[in-house]
Amino acid sequence: MSDEEPSRLAQTRDVAVVRVTLDGVMREMDVAAVEEPLEVRLHDRPFAVIMRTPGADRTLAAGFLLAEGVIEQAQELGAVEHCRHPDHPEVHNVVNVFLLGGARDRVEARLAERRNVTASASCGMCGRLTIESLETRVAALRLATRVDRAFVQGLPDRLRTQQQVFERTGGLHAAALFSVQGDLAASAEDVGRHNAVDKVIGAMLFEDRLPLIGHVLVVSGRTSFEIVQKAWIAGIELVCAVSAPSSLAIEVAEAAGITLVGFAREHGFNIYSHPDRVEEV
Amino acid sequence: MSDEEPSRLAQTRDVAVVRVTLDGVMREMDVAAVEEPLEVRLHDRPFAVIMRTPGADRTLAAGFLLAEGVIEQAQELGAVEHCRHPDHPEVHNVVNVFLLGGARDRVEARLAERRNVTASASCGMCGRLTIESLETRVAALRLATRVDRAFVQGLPDRLRTQQQVFERTGGLHAAALFSVQGDLAASAEDVGRHNAVDKVIGAMLFEDRLPLIGHVLVVSGRTSFEIVQKAWIAGIELVCAVSAPSSLAIEVAEAAGITLVGFAREHGFNIYSHPDRVEEV
Repeated sequence: MSDEEPSRLAQTRDVAVVRVTLDGVMREMDVAAVEEPLEVRLHDRPFAVIMRTPGADRTLAAGFLLAEGVIEQAQELGAVEHCRHPDHPEVHNVVNVFLLGGARDRVEARLAERRNVTASASCGMCGRLTIESLETRVAALRLATRVDRAFVQGLPDRLRTQQQVFERTGGLHAAALFSVQGDLAASAEDVGRHNAVDKVIGAMLFEDRLPLIGHVLVVSGRTSFEIVQKAWIAGIELVCAVSAPSSLAIEVAEAAGITLVGFAREHGFNIYSHPDRVEEV
Repeated sequence: MSDEEPSRLAQTRDVAVVRVTLDGVMREMDVAAVEEPLEVRLHDRPFAVIMRTPGADRTLAAGFLLAEGVIEQAQELGAVEHCRHPDHPEVHNVVNVFLLGGARDRVEARLAERRNVTASASCGMCGRLTIESLETRVAALRLATRVDRAFVQGLPDRLRTQQQVFERTGGLHAAALFSVQGDLAASAEDVGRHNAVDKVIGAMLFEDRLPLIGHVLVVSGRTSFEIVQKAWIAGIELVCAVSAPSSLAIEVAEAAGITLVGFAREHGFNIYSHPDRVEEV
């Protein structure tokens, strides 16, 4: 689509992966979809932070402001610009929007009347700052537990046995927490991937079982930054997903000391960070 | 998982569907995953609204507050209660949390220092109120355009040709907008499903082409409330997804006058609302 963007806004990033297959273990390079926060500012004031894949940032900001009701028509959109600062290359993750006409008049009132909602923990100018702020809050996990290859390979099947509503609707994400001995600690299904993880960790919180050392989190679908962040805060050492991780999920797992597994299937899986927890690889 | 919940918090809902297959067209009942907003309150003050599948609401709230850093340990969690009101059954979508210890001391400061972020348009006590607030903002779409069955069946293939990054990473959602003549208007890929839709609609906004009468939106994966809401605001008459819709996506499409298609595959698809736009069914 047409949107002039700096070329550094790559949509993919090369990542190192340990690929475990029937034919053996290979260390090679793979490609991950980039995930980074975009801060949308209105008249230089922070308005929202969106976890997104870079590229088409200006159209993303425009579409987002339309859906949010900040603008109602194209004529209310003035300049929509990436912030630029020679000393801070990360400001390519900030878009500043100037409103015109009715939207300009409404925005001050709207900022004032807005309901109190929480900022997601993903706030920050870029992925780097996001990780740094997490690191000041939570220590990296130590390697306390090891699992073997067969255990990891069996996790998607174990998750599937917990996906009761998905079986009927095809419409839900699932998350499950197992001990490294293979016992189910908690599972949940939800239309929101993060919610399923919050439900699982929340159940453990009610039982006062945090930190969840010696446990693995299995999730359907892809792994985003937020999933790994939640695992980190809960002290979960290994996160295993049926599909691909984002670039930021991998970076956070690296910083957190979490073993991040993706594309877990019957005959193999990929390890994106801290492979030492998996024996025989 | 253990969480005492009222039985009305069903995770699935029966929905009417027009099933278009190689063997013909069948009108039958299907089951959709329930999506509804949950409002999390801290000490009776609104804190966040989460689009979720009902059930395990208290553990969801607990896990969410941990991930957000509102609480740091189980001991800071006091009462976590569903609001109850005899005249307002929808308050089962509100959970009130009382904090203890350090969290209670921190919360006031946190509410004050919190970054300005936007409320999603999904705010409200329940799906019904959410739809009503949309209805006051946007008129329902009229039936302006018809498409034939072969056109709908071909949409997933058309979307796939736009999924360049997904091919390499397996990690991105895609959205594309086509005219009913089959011309591509815009497409985008993103780690976030909503972002891909915002990018597509935002591109059209920059070209001042809204409302998008005579266009169809095709999305990879599932359809949530937010996807249909964005289509409605942009005036898109037909939304076609490769996977399942949520209950609230169907309800919003019904109110919006949008034709909602799900499970679009090579040999057939399901229509969840306003089937009149599709000829021969």
